[in-house]
Formats: sequence, structure tokens, C-alpha cells
Amino acid sequence: MSARIYLDHNATTPISPIVRDHVIEWLEQWGNPSSIHASGRGPKALLRESREAIAKFIGCSSLELIFTAGGSEANNLAVKGVFETLQKQGSRRNHFIFSRVEHPSLIRTAEYLVSRGARVSFIDVNRDGRIDLNQYASLLSDEVALVSVMMANNETGNLFPIREMAEMAHAHGALMHSDGVQAFGKLPVDVRELGVDLASFAGHKFYALKGAGVLYSRRGVTLEPLIHGGGQERHRRGGTENALAIAALGLMCGQKDLVAQKADEMRVLRDHFEARVLKEIPFVSVTGAEAPRLPNTSSLVITGVDGEIMLMNLDIKGFSVSTGAACSSGSPEPSPVLLAMGLSRAEAQSSLRVGLGWSTTREQIDLFTEALIEVVAHLRTIGGFDLTTGKEAHAFN
Amino acid sequence: MSARIYLDHNATTPISPIVRDHVIEWLEQWGNPSSIHASGRGPKALLRESREAIAKFIGCSSLELIFTAGGSEANNLAVKGVFETLQKQGSRRNHFIFSRVEHPSLIRTAEYLVSRGARVSFIDVNRDGRIDLNQYASLLSDEVALVSVMMANNETGNLFPIREMAEMAHAHGALMHSDGVQAFGKLPVDVRELGVDLASFAGHKFYALKGAGVLYSRRGVTLEPLIHGGGQERHRRGGTENALAIAALGLMCGQKDLVAQKADEMRVLRDHFEARVLKEIPFVSVTGAEAPRLPNTSSLVITGVDGEIMLMNLDIKGFSVSTGAACSSGSPEPSPVLLAMGLSRAEAQSSLRVGLGWSTTREQIDLFTEALIEVVAHLRTIGGFDLTTGKEAHAFN
Repeated sequence: MSARIYLDHNATTPISPIVRDHVIEWLEQWGNPSSIHASGRGPKALLRESREAIAKFIGCSSLELIFTAGGSEANNLAVKGVFETLQKQGSRRNHFIFSRVEHPSLIRTAEYLVSRGARVSFIDVNRDGRIDLNQYASLLSDEVALVSVMMANNETGNLFPIREMAEMAHAHGALMHSDGVQAFGKLPVDVRELGVDLASFAGHKFYALKGAGVLYSRRGVTLEPLIHGGGQERHRRGGTENALAIAALGLMCGQKDLVAQKADEMRVLRDHFEARVLKEIPFVSVTGAEAPRLPNTSSLVITGVDGEIMLMNLDIKGFSVSTGAACSSGSPEPSPVLLAMGLSRAEAQSSLRVGLGWSTTREQIDLFTEALIEVVAHLRTIGGFDLTTGKEAHAFN
Repeated sequence: MSARIYLDHNATTPISPIVRDHVIEWLEQWGNPSSIHASGRGPKALLRESREAIAKFIGCSSLELIFTAGGSEANNLAVKGVFETLQKQGSRRNHFIFSRVEHPSLIRTAEYLVSRGARVSFIDVNRDGRIDLNQYASLLSDEVALVSVMMANNETGNLFPIREMAEMAHAHGALMHSDGVQAFGKLPVDVRELGVDLASFAGHKFYALKGAGVLYSRRGVTLEPLIHGGGQERHRRGGTENALAIAALGLMCGQKDLVAQKADEMRVLRDHFEARVLKEIPFVSVTGAEAPRLPNTSSLVITGVDGEIMLMNLDIKGFSVSTGAACSSGSPEPSPVLLAMGLSRAEAQSSLRVGLGWSTTREQIDLFTEALIEVVAHLRTIGGFDLTTGKEAHAFN
């Protein structure tokens, strides 16, 4: 059997060989970074070096970074940290604005804020992948505490105009947070250029290890901790630091020059993939293709094919991809992102997400495309899909 | 130079050789456990196996475990999770009881609860290491939501009567949480036997990796998540799981039989150490020695010696130990635990914590004891300590 071809880099990434090569060495630094004896110095140095590398990578000061266990914690800390701080201050700013296509760690946090008495609004995103800036403008007021819109969507790869949205938020005295987890490492990111006050990132979507994320918190922003505890992270996040995973994240961030180059390489392959698919598979559309996108992501709707069955067929053939279809393992509902963008349940149920990575080759893409063509044809045949009209014998919803 | 002798196992532990030997193999399981394709199956299996091993280790069902990034997060989740749930229910139970010697992740959380309108009380612990059960009984009422008392104190090693305290809490309809981070792996722990509803543990104090903790949450206990997000951990904790650190924790928990044996070995060495110190160094006392203690911990007050300077002198000689003295690296105040137990600032400033581990040998203990005797004599001489009266030339506060 040939090696598995992994095209699900938006879910997580393989561990970079340079990270793997350092792991055993980093494990020697098992001391507690808070210890003032020699056993604490090695891990403390790892934290410092990593912090500096990450700061340089995203264009901020190392004091503006708070290490977390991952992107979800960073997102929770950003939003709840602002909410709690304003509550303590008795601020009248009690309105929080999100896009409708945020990651569950923000959607669920938004629901939690409602339970705490906050006012929460969601900005629409259309099926082209564009966020409704007019609606956004109409939501802004001097009661807005925080706007949280992701840099790039995890399912479609769509990029949102964060810089413009941050300016609009600031014009009303609101803070701007952006979930940068999917954009991180896939495109160059500069938090100062974006003008955001808060931004979340995670190591495991950038070839590092699971267990380390980071929240950029601009100097001057006050956050009530999410995890209260010791003095770590300047009292902003309690808990012994995961120096191993943090070191891995820092090492990857040392490769800033590679990001733009790899983005270009992935874009060429992704565009090649989509061109072949659109040419060789009838009744396929690319979601969000009209708007700016990450260079590595392709979100397809393949009419007449159930996403979960398609995924399983591709899995058996050795390909790892993802779907927005309701899945046995996960939610009973198809992708909330695709539904929020206006796709029907049937369309979301027929979706496929392909996420390329730094190690993806043209040969892999061609092997995958051919497997996809074959699987789609097979499933359409047994499903009674009418190739002349594009009509499904039954809708997958 | 001879190898460093690490006697600070209450701060963190070295990584077990069996864990280190598995790390590279576990790194192969870098997939996202939520992925339904083959890349997700390996990490998902690691999570399942680890969950089962931990459940067996602490005597519960694997469904009653919530993986976190560490002990601090587990403590925050337990207390805030109960608080938020009761708030949503509009419960009249709004009183939270802690011991005065809890870990900062609970003391700071208690302060946070006060800012949210909860009533918070603290139970005293005396300098013998005994918690005031009469005071505890007088605090209990049907307004108590949760009692949180640690199994073992991180500084003195003192063990508290959790089973009895849980029964008392339950008699008033309150829940019982216990921070088991320091007890974990140092003594056998059985959550059902203890009768607690919630209990926190962390891998990095038990020879596993940083980045994985676990909260035991008895079936029937409802917790609002601390990290809202995806469906991980049955919707109780969002975020991609750190399968590597979780696997390490599970592997260590597979060695249940070793715990009691290692506890006995450490107790013999610790008692040998204390006997020598008490015999060979005048004006030394052991804090909390009158009450039950962890077998590995020795908390000394060495009159006439500044803890931080003592630590640095021992560090130079190759020994890693800890002190409750106010330190350059940390808090400007000496140990809140020792102060809460009734020690003076001068006593806390002259404290030394020795924490033995599974790999500690009698030879190491003797080398350390001799170094300590030498350092104490030296520092007392230059500090003008009067060995006939035990009077300090100046107090270290």
C-alpha cells in the first residue's frame, strides 16, 4: 500500500521534521520555568526564545504575547477576558459582534456571553465568501465592546478585511479581536499592520505540536484571566508552561521567509486541483471562490454525492480529507459555516474540504484528483444521479 | 562536575524514561482526534487508552474524566464550572468554601468568585498542618455550593481528611472538589473512596509531560465549560486534544502498583533526611510534621538563614530545591501557605522545601544533607547567628 496522502491541513498539520528532530533535546528541559534554580533556567530560556521568535513572526513585542494551550483557549481568553474586565469596570459597553462563520470556540463563547447578559450580534457572510460590511457598519455604536472576526475561515479559507474592520471598530471605541488560527503560517500575518488589539494563533495548525497557542494582546489591553493561578504570563494565564510545545511553535516561527514562498507553491497546486475538478467533474462548485481565500483551501460542493460516504471512500483509498456533512463522529447537523453562507442542507451535505500543506506535491494532487473523479462517478452511479440534468435521485439532507 | 541532584519534585518531575522512550512513536499520531479518516484514528485510540488507564488509576469511569491542559485549568474548571451552572439555574447556593492553603489557581479563583458576587470562606490550617474541622462544620449550611480542599499541600505535603470533609459537605447538599495535583502519583488515590464529586490532577507532577491534566467529574455533576468550543470531551472542554501529553499521563497511570511501593521508599528516605537534619543542624523545625503528610515532602524552617540565599548556595553546589521565601523571580511576599499556617514572615523567609522523587537515592539524600549542613553553617556564620541562643543578628523579613 502506498503512503497515505494527507489533504486535511486545516484540521491539523503533520509535525515538521525540524520540530521532531528537536523534541528529545527539548525534553531534557523538563524543569519548571518558575523554579529559580538551575533546573528552571533551560525551560525558561526556551520560553523566552520562543516568545521572541513568535513576536517577530507576527510583528509585535514579546510582552504582548500570552501563551495558552491552543487556539480555543486563546479565543475564549480574548473574548471573556474583555467581557469580564468591562463588567468589573461597570462599563456600558456590553455589545459583542462576531461573524456568523466563526470557529465554535467563538460561537459557543458568544452564546455564553448572552447567558451573562451581553448583547451579541452576528455579521452575515454570503456564499461568495464576502462579509457584509454594510451590516457591520450598522451594528457599530459606542456600546460595542469587542468585534471578533477571523482572519481566514477554516472551511472555505475565505479571508476577511480585518484591517478595515478594525479601523471601523476603533472609530467607535471598540476593541478588535481576530482568530488567526487558520491564517497562521499559511499567509504572512502582521498584527500591527492589521491593527487588531487581540489575535489568536495555534501551533498545531503550523507543523508544531498540539498544546501550545498564543494570544496577542496589544499593550494597554486589560484582560481578566481565563485560568486564574500563579504569576505565569505576567499574571495573565496561570499554569505551568508547556515549554516543549511552546518551543516547537517558536521554532516554526523562525521560518518566516518560508511562509510567503510556501503560500505561492500551495496556491499553484490548489488552483491546478480546482481547474481539473471543475473541468473533469460535472456539477461541482467551489464555495467562496469569488472572494479572497487562503492559498491552501478548497471547499467543494459535489452535487449528488454524500460528503460522509465520499470521505470514507477516499479514506479507504488512502486520502485524508474533510467534509462539512453531518458525520457519525460529530455533529448531527451539517457545517454551520456553510449553512450560514446560504448553502442548503443538501449542498452542505455534499461538501468536501481539501486543505493542502507545505509538503503537498503535484503528484499527490493528481493522484487525489483521479481518485476523487472515480469515487464521485461511482457514488453518482449507485445513487442514481442524472448526469444530463444534474438532478439527484434523492437529496442528502 | 557531578550530575545535578533534583529534590524539587513538588514543583515538577523529570520525565520518566518509559515516557521518553514512547515520545517519538506517539508523535507519529499527530492527526486530529476529531477527524473521521484514518489520520484521526491513532490519536483517538491514544486518548481512549489513556482515559481508561487514568480511570482505573483513580477508581472511576472513563466517562467521568475531562482532559485539560493541566492542574490549574482543572481547578478553574471545577470551581467556575459549578459556579456558572448554579448561576444559570438561579440556585440560592452561592457560598464557596476553600482551605487557606490552596494552590494559587484556587485562591485566585476564589477571589474571582467574590468579584462575581459569591460568598467565599476559608478554613484555617494550623502550623501542625491540621485543618480546623470545627470551623469547617460551622461554615456549612444549605447555601454552600462547593467545598474545595486539596488532598495534599504542595509546600508542606500535609494531607487533609477529604473523605470526612466530603461527607460533611454532602450532608448539607454541597459538592466536594479536591485538588489532587500534589497527591497524584505520590500516594494511591481513589476518588470513589474519597467520596469527592470533582478532583484535579496533572501529568507533569507524575513523570509525564507538561500540557495534560485531568478533572474527575462524577457522573451527574454538571459543569459549564471553561473553554467553550467544539464537541471534544463531550462538550465539556473545547480545543484539539494534546494526545502526546495525554498518552504520557495514561502510560504513567498504568503503573498503579508502583505508587505504594515508591511511596514507602520515599518515606524511608525522607524520614532519614529529617532525622539527620534535626540531629545535625541546630534550630531547625519541620513544618506540618505533626499531621499526616505526603511521603516525599519535607518543609523546614532553618532559623537564621535566608531561604533564597540558601537556595542559591545549594543551587551552585548542584542541588535543586525550593523555598517559601520571597524570591527575586516570583512574589514579593513569602509563601502564603506558610503564613496562613501561622508561621511568621521571618520563619517563612527561612524555609526550605525538599521534595523527593521516584529516582531519589539514599546517596543523593546524604550528599544533600551534608551540603545543607555546610551551607547553613556558613550562612549562619556570616549572618552573625548566635548558636548558643538561636537568636538571629537580624530577621529575614
